[in-house]
Amino acid sequence: MTALGRHLILELRDCNPERLNDLPFIERVMLEAARRANATILSHQFRRFEPQGVSGIVIIAESHLAIHTWPEYGYAAVDVYTCGETLRPEVAAAHLVKALECSRPYVISIKRGLLEDNTVARPQEIIRLDEQGLGGEKGVAQTVL
Amino acid sequence: MTALGRHLILELRDCNPERLNDLPFIERVMLEAARRANATILSHQFRRFEPQGVSGIVIIAESHLAIHTWPEYGYAAVDVYTCGETLRPEVAAAHLVKALECSRPYVISIKRGLLEDNTVARPQEIIRLDEQGLGGEKGVAQTVL
Repeated sequence: MTALGRHLILELRDCNPERLNDLPFIERVMLEAARRANATILSHQFRRFEPQGVSGIVIIAESHLAIHTWPEYGYAAVDVYTCGETLRPEVAAAHLVKALECSRPYVISIKRGLLEDNTVARPQEIIRLDEQGLGGEKGVAQTVL
Repeated sequence: MTALGRHLILELRDCNPERLNDLPFIERVMLEAARRANATILSHQFRRFEPQGVSGIVIIAESHLAIHTWPEYGYAAVDVYTCGETLRPEVAAAHLVKALECSRPYVISIKRGLLEDNTVARPQEIIRLDEQGLGGEKGVAQTVL
C-alpha cells in the first residue's frame, strides 16, 4: 500500500544519562542520523533545559527528526519521520540507539499518508531492536507486537 | 499508567488545498493551535516547497508541533506532541482540523514515556473526529479501532 511517508517513533529507555544531557553531543548525533538516513538537512534547532534535558528538531526536505530527553529517567523520545523511497529511517534509528547507549529501545513504525480508500494510518509494526540495531544496518529487527 | 507525554498523530485528508499551500496561513494556525493547547512557544520555523507544500515546526517548552502538507492530495500530516498535565493537545488538533477545512480527519493518540515495567509505547486509541472537533472542545471523539 502506497504511503507518502514513514514515521518511526522511538522510545529509548535505559540510555546513558550523561549523553542525554549533553547538548552538543545530541545535536551532533541527530545531524549524523539525518545524514545516514540520506536526508537533506534544511535547518536545525537544539535547546537545553534547566535543570536538565535537551530538545531538538532537524528539519529535512523529507520531513523531520525530533528528540526530547529526560536524563533523570535515562529516557529519550525520538521521532524519525521521512518521505520518499530513497530514505533510510531505520539507519538513523539504529545510529541513535547506539550513540545514546540505549539498552532498551522500542520502535513503532507508522505509515503516514495512506491516501487510498478509507485506510487509516495505523501502526504497522512494533519492533524491538537487538543490540546491533535495526535491519537497515546489520542487525535484526524483531516484531514484538 | 503514568506517561511523560502524549503524542497525537493527525492524518488529515480532504483538506482545503489552497489553505495547505498558504505558508502565512499555516504558520498562523499552527501557532494558534499551540496557544490553544496551553503550550509555551519557544521558536518556530516554516518553509514552503516548490512547486507546492508547506512544512513547519513549532518548538514548545513541552515538546513540539509539526506539519507537512501535500496540497496536491489535499493531505496534511500533523503531530501534536505535548508533555505535562495542563496541556490540551486535543484542542490544538480540533483547531487545525477546522482551520484546514478537513472533512476526513483521523487521530492516533500515543502515550510517550511509559517508564514502568516493560511497557512499550503503543497506540492507545484511534479516534475519528466528528465535525465539531475533538472531545477537548465540544465535539465527540469516536473510537474507530
